[in-house]
Amino acid sequence: MASSQLPRHISRQFDNELESIRERVLNMGGLVEQQLVDALKALTDSDIEKGEAVVRKEPSVNSYEVSIDEECTKILARRQPAAGDLRLITAVIKTITDLERIGDEAEKVAQMAIYLTGKQGAKSYYIGINSMGNFVREMVSDSLDAFARMDSEAALKTAAREPESDEQYAAILRQLVTYMMEDPRSITSVIDAIWTVRSLERIGDHARNICEYVIYFVEGKDVRHLSIEEMQKQMSA
Amino acid sequence: MASSQLPRHISRQFDNELESIRERVLNMGGLVEQQLVDALKALTDSDIEKGEAVVRKEPSVNSYEVSIDEECTKILARRQPAAGDLRLITAVIKTITDLERIGDEAEKVAQMAIYLTGKQGAKSYYIGINSMGNFVREMVSDSLDAFARMDSEAALKTAAREPESDEQYAAILRQLVTYMMEDPRSITSVIDAIWTVRSLERIGDHARNICEYVIYFVEGKDVRHLSIEEMQKQMSA
Repeated sequence: MASSQLPRHISRQFDNELESIRERVLNMGGLVEQQLVDALKALTDSDIEKGEAVVRKEPSVNSYEVSIDEECTKILARRQPAAGDLRLITAVIKTITDLERIGDEAEKVAQMAIYLTGKQGAKSYYIGINSMGNFVREMVSDSLDAFARMDSEAALKTAAREPESDEQYAAILRQLVTYMMEDPRSITSVIDAIWTVRSLERIGDHARNICEYVIYFVEGKDVRHLSIEEMQKQMSA
Repeated sequence: MASSQLPRHISRQFDNELESIRERVLNMGGLVEQQLVDALKALTDSDIEKGEAVVRKEPSVNSYEVSIDEECTKILARRQPAAGDLRLITAVIKTITDLERIGDEAEKVAQMAIYLTGKQGAKSYYIGINSMGNFVREMVSDSLDAFARMDSEAALKTAAREPESDEQYAAILRQLVTYMMEDPRSITSVIDAIWTVRSLERIGDHARNICEYVIYFVEGKDVRHLSIEEMQKQMSA
């Protein structure tokens, strides 16, 4: 949400604390998104150095998770937040878990980029993967945007794209299996490519989760485990 | 923790609420563990009905997650817990997320059991998978036990077994790739087997996460993202 839309409290200090948490989540999100961008670039450009930089930065993502979590616990203990404030804190606690896992998956993609660089034939598998990578990167970016503005409509729109990433995943998988059948010598490197596409599919799931927390915060409704249509109904109810 | 070890409050009602949450987490854990047992059994016995029963019960796991989460939020708002109580609530909020994901993975295993039943040659892949399945099932069971007794030593011991599940995973994967190379016609069904072993590996990760929350509750120390040795040091510090 825009800073001006943050709930205002008698304690100005409390306002500052909530604003600081929100900023740190967005910083963490920015780092995670950049990790994903760099991991994908390492993959398509066979850029080992970029891949290694992603691996090196992964502990910073973890540190964000641990320290934001700690900050949230402190606020819970000190400020005893209620209603919207409490929903914000629980939404943040869940969001950073998903962000951390997106960071993990980005690291796996980077590891694969390092491992595959120079391996014969590998590049041709990565055309579909790159386009799927861009798709889920956009989902992550849009979910963070929805979080920044605490916009439940935008969150719903982004969550609604997740099934499309599942379809891309299935299509790429079918194509990769065909490669293996045509040339059994490619099996091990195709399996590696499969892990990468699996990582991307999970990143799409995590982005959808973040959207669900935004909807929870804004609408006060838990829309996890619902289909997109059910989510929509809940929101207009 | 044993019921007698629960922190006592002036409000007897608050004691009851914490006890009720603890019981519900254990009930959810029992259901999730049973789902995993049944999914593995469906796989090894080619028992479609058992597999379908697991799929049917999956929404109950989700309901547990949503309703325990709601109960935790209510307690946070109404009781404004501090110190150990607050750590218990945050540990519960995180634990149920991991339990829900173990339930998801168990459902995937069950889906695969249904899909593979009757498929030629599939059974031979499942020897290693079954033994790994038992290993991670034990990890889940032990992590729930550590949660029930809030025993951080037991939690550390269980967490320490997770690298072993990674090794099993890598060994089974190597074996499965060999099958594909020897007989390319087996590729699609081996890929299916690979998803199952991946699910099991993730279940081991989630069990370890639960152990980390137990340690957080008991010791007041966040031991995520640490190696087992570092966890041990933190605990004895």
